[in-house]
Amino acid sequence: MAEELLRAHHDGSPAHVDTPADQVVATPPIGARTRVRVSVPHAAQVDRVHVRAVEDGEPVHRPARRVGRGTAVDVYEAEVHQVTPTQRYRFELDGAGGTRWLTQAGTVEHEVPDTWDFALCAQPAPPRWVADAALYQIFPDRFARGGASEDWPSWAEPAAWDEPVATSYPASMHQLYGGDLLGIVQRLEHLTHLGVSGVYLTPIFPSIENHRYAAASFDAVDAFLGGDAGLAELSAALHARGLVLIGDLTLNHSGSTHPWFLAAQADAASEEAGYYHFIEHPHRYHAWQGVTTLPKFDHRSPALRARLYDGPGSVAARYLDAPFHLDGWRIDAANMAGRQGATDLAHDLQRALLATVRAVGDDRYLLAEHCHDATVDLQGEGWHGTMDYAGFTRPVWSWLVAPGRDVHLLGGPAPVRRRGGREVARMIDLVRGQIPWRSVIHGMTLLGSHDTLRWAFVAGDRDRRHVGLTWLLTFAGVPSLFYGDEVGLGGALPAADPDARAGGTGAADVLTRQPMPWDPDAWDHDTHDLVRRLLRMRAGSPALRRGGLRWVHLDDDVIAYLRLHPDEQVLVVLARQQTGAFDLDAEVLGARTLEPMTDQARVTVREGRLRIPATERAAARVWRLGATA
Amino acid sequence: MAEELLRAHHDGSPAHVDTPADQVVATPPIGARTRVRVSVPHAAQVDRVHVRAVEDGEPVHRPARRVGRGTAVDVYEAEVHQVTPTQRYRFELDGAGGTRWLTQAGTVEHEVPDTWDFALCAQPAPPRWVADAALYQIFPDRFARGGASEDWPSWAEPAAWDEPVATSYPASMHQLYGGDLLGIVQRLEHLTHLGVSGVYLTPIFPSIENHRYAAASFDAVDAFLGGDAGLAELSAALHARGLVLIGDLTLNHSGSTHPWFLAAQADAASEEAGYYHFIEHPHRYHAWQGVTTLPKFDHRSPALRARLYDGPGSVAARYLDAPFHLDGWRIDAANMAGRQGATDLAHDLQRALLATVRAVGDDRYLLAEHCHDATVDLQGEGWHGTMDYAGFTRPVWSWLVAPGRDVHLLGGPAPVRRRGGREVARMIDLVRGQIPWRSVIHGMTLLGSHDTLRWAFVAGDRDRRHVGLTWLLTFAGVPSLFYGDEVGLGGALPAADPDARAGGTGAADVLTRQPMPWDPDAWDHDTHDLVRRLLRMRAGSPALRRGGLRWVHLDDDVIAYLRLHPDEQVLVVLARQQTGAFDLDAEVLGARTLEPMTDQARVTVREGRLRIPATERAAARVWRLGATA
Repeated sequence: MAEELLRAHHDGSPAHVDTPADQVVATPPIGARTRVRVSVPHAAQVDRVHVRAVEDGEPVHRPARRVGRGTAVDVYEAEVHQVTPTQRYRFELDGAGGTRWLTQAGTVEHEVPDTWDFALCAQPAPPRWVADAALYQIFPDRFARGGASEDWPSWAEPAAWDEPVATSYPASMHQLYGGDLLGIVQRLEHLTHLGVSGVYLTPIFPSIENHRYAAASFDAVDAFLGGDAGLAELSAALHARGLVLIGDLTLNHSGSTHPWFLAAQADAASEEAGYYHFIEHPHRYHAWQGVTTLPKFDHRSPALRARLYDGPGSVAARYLDAPFHLDGWRIDAANMAGRQGATDLAHDLQRALLATVRAVGDDRYLLAEHCHDATVDLQGEGWHGTMDYAGFTRPVWSWLVAPGRDVHLLGGPAPVRRRGGREVARMIDLVRGQIPWRSVIHGMTLLGSHDTLRWAFVAGDRDRRHVGLTWLLTFAGVPSLFYGDEVGLGGALPAADPDARAGGTGAADVLTRQPMPWDPDAWDHDTHDLVRRLLRMRAGSPALRRGGLRWVHLDDDVIAYLRLHPDEQVLVVLARQQTGAFDLDAEVLGARTLEPMTDQARVTVREGRLRIPATERAAARVWRLGATA
Repeated sequence: MAEELLRAHHDGSPAHVDTPADQVVATPPIGARTRVRVSVPHAAQVDRVHVRAVEDGEPVHRPARRVGRGTAVDVYEAEVHQVTPTQRYRFELDGAGGTRWLTQAGTVEHEVPDTWDFALCAQPAPPRWVADAALYQIFPDRFARGGASEDWPSWAEPAAWDEPVATSYPASMHQLYGGDLLGIVQRLEHLTHLGVSGVYLTPIFPSIENHRYAAASFDAVDAFLGGDAGLAELSAALHARGLVLIGDLTLNHSGSTHPWFLAAQADAASEEAGYYHFIEHPHRYHAWQGVTTLPKFDHRSPALRARLYDGPGSVAARYLDAPFHLDGWRIDAANMAGRQGATDLAHDLQRALLATVRAVGDDRYLLAEHCHDATVDLQGEGWHGTMDYAGFTRPVWSWLVAPGRDVHLLGGPAPVRRRGGREVARMIDLVRGQIPWRSVIHGMTLLGSHDTLRWAFVAGDRDRRHVGLTWLLTFAGVPSLFYGDEVGLGGALPAADPDARAGGTGAADVLTRQPMPWDPDAWDHDTHDLVRRLLRMRAGSPALRRGGLRWVHLDDDVIAYLRLHPDEQVLVVLARQQTGAFDLDAEVLGARTLEPMTDQARVTVREGRLRIPATERAAARVWRLGATA
């Protein structure tokens, strides 16, 4: 019997926190009291529940009251007093089972620090559309060529669409396939047919490298991509179809050919010289990971802040406004921006940028790139969310990586190790358990990006690949597909040196940026159909988009979780290989039937149990809970 | 075989971090590179070690080099680059044993957030004497009466020295036994004979309650205690004997009879009105836990800050200076001070106070009261340390509480649960693993205080009591004895209502404040002898005072740890009841003999093993490691 299901549960979703019906998360103002509920299976042997909150620095315990008594599960309710803007709390469970803590990282049998306290945030909620979104990431040079311009940049080495990706520097950075914004406009049918709700577009500013993260200007869109008019046209075309468009802005550095940096180098007394961290003017300066083409911004300069992100005249504001109407920004290298030695202005940057973004519209989204533990930047006041490599991508890879395949993810000497389901759930809990639920549900989940190996290559076979895609599209967070993943792109990497294939050298991201194949013969249509069906399922399911998350069964080869919402409960069962059947207690689960949402049989209660059937191979199954027990 | 000993180990002590020989902790300035070492038993199956540090927000991995190859243990060395003032790092261990992380909370077999990263701090070190200190806490009214004044305060209900402690309010707060500063001066022989190195004195300002935390003035010492002259005399007498004196200052609130508060209530436009948080002037205001006699300070007032702690004219500075020469402050309710709703000035307060204290002398100590997880306030920039209730007192009580005895510690509805050794070590690791080693080694360890039940009552019998005292005096942190614990005071609590005995109602602290018995017939002389011997042992042992901490064996009833120092290694084995013998691998331990430091037999290697003998009952044994294997 699944022991995870026998533990008490709470999360920050509307299933357990009083939340206005039209909202994704509660935003109780200071002074408010928010009712929160805990589900307590009788098997947990709990008969006293307290909520424990730190109020103005001091722990306070308040009793919870039993408001529901079921045959297998009781419900306790307590009030969280919003004393601080980010109000943290956890539950003390006491009874014959001992004294335990229920934290955001699960139940702990002994005393714990405050690390995994739940949190309610008074700050304005992220835009409501975000949690309902499913994004599609496009790397402009590699998605589709519309022929916006034949005036190829001087640094470019033009490549034909079917040419292999170059893996050696500098060809890897200069190879240009000529994808552009017009190309995306021409292919919008692909997106609407697929069923995503928006596009996350990597940079579109002029640069001297094909990824365009080395901005040569923030004043205008790269003319070769179609210029300002091209971006405005793409945005309008997306919005006309009800899709959003997220831009990509680097606040950590510019390119070394940016006029600001040239002015800074030319004159140590210039305003622009204050925009950068010169160690010894003009040729020694701090740069992104020491790469001198990417000089690092010094955010102590008020003039820089005003130009980049502080106020309505800034770059950040300009592209959110007419005629571009971007729906938000993904901030590149956000973990580093504003941090240099003893100077840490990251939170000032976040606050100022957020204020600027909100001034344009409270429907704009602010997402940060963050490749490791982002706890320090996700306490309710800064980013709406981060790219959840640490709390999603890495755990998923750890469970589904092809056996025997050495793959690296985002640096570090060791390859991603294959781990069992409990360990992987623990990794997720430890990372996500430190940040408020609002930041989890508004963070981006992804199986890969332009900075990683291709998901199809990591998973190694189609079954595991599909399990990962199902995980992505049924989990808590805003899913983002990397262009081509929906047709199985990259399962067989082009021949290259083994290091590059493993992703340990920085060449992995380059390999992964294959041009999108538009010949349907090159597609895996089963994968395409699966992604379409999953996107449609998610769009129709409040639980999958906005629901809480509860593990119900974990073993080496099975990860099963519930998505919980007042309107609906959904059970997801992932198997990474052949597995046996297992039982769930129908009364504890609160269902007498499981209604299939993916292609498998209905399950009905027998002798109090719901039997999840065995699988012959890696498989993902999704059911809606039916007929309350 | 003790599995803890087979794991890799690192800590922030001089045994593993290059530290100047005359320093307790390394303080590498920004730009420095500090060599750090990891001990890797062969049994851990590790053959690649990297140090991983977050530098300007980005994870960086650097290889460690094997610098020592032993028959059972290898040593790896890496460099930590001091990029930020508090530079965090951890180790990646890779090899046949898998890929693991070595963190400050131990080895973790899967990916982890940055929560338990080690930390090196560039900020000036705490005073060097602190880590070598052993303090003695005195509650002035209850230690000794010298008869400094017969002018009893008007609110006082004078009590004879042998009268029972009143447990009902208001008698509990007004009962005054008449202990004073002259009484302490007269009893200094007791302290020097015992062997402590200093006194921590709870407040000595005029008040309207016997604990004197409700200050009626900060301008002068309570005349009934002996006034300013009494404090100066005590300080001089202690210093003449080489002992330090720590005062107790409340920055969270004053008493409601304080002239500042009276002025504030009298005139809403007064400067003093800005010192407090009025909700509705003059009668509704924020107060410590809602107790209206303790109105809470508003640290937004620059005038208040200047009077209390910001600058040389402040209260904080004044008593550190002539003629008082306090050696430091224990800051009362430090977890709350400066925190009120959306306003959190706690870190500003800490920085300003620390600057003031340092301006008087860099040999002054700043210790904070903190009853729960203090991570947020211990990242290298604020307090030198906190009272480690969370990382020491609660775990020790959890292991040594008398079976079947319900005791409460510092609030919360549940009594302290009896737990096994592994769980208890885990509690310690999770709490202490989040803060820099410098804050651990300069924090205060204690078995109890004026705010808790008496240790002798909690432990229930003499054997467990002695195990706890040995733990206190051999562990990492600055030990503090509560007056009377050295003679076994309080083993049998005076009759009172059961709630008060359990410590759940706030009456526990009152019961615990028994007058010090000066009749030697009332003493447990075995306890007294033990404490004397342990204090002498600690004073003579660099490992016990300054050494790192490594678990070597944990089970339900045994907790064994090493204290590691370049000059000496000490093994402490605690048993909470009868236990069997167990073996330690001599080569992994790095010793061929164990030389007794407490009263038991020498142990010599046999067939590669050092056998720790069985015990008949709760017992604590300490050995120095001898004759390197």
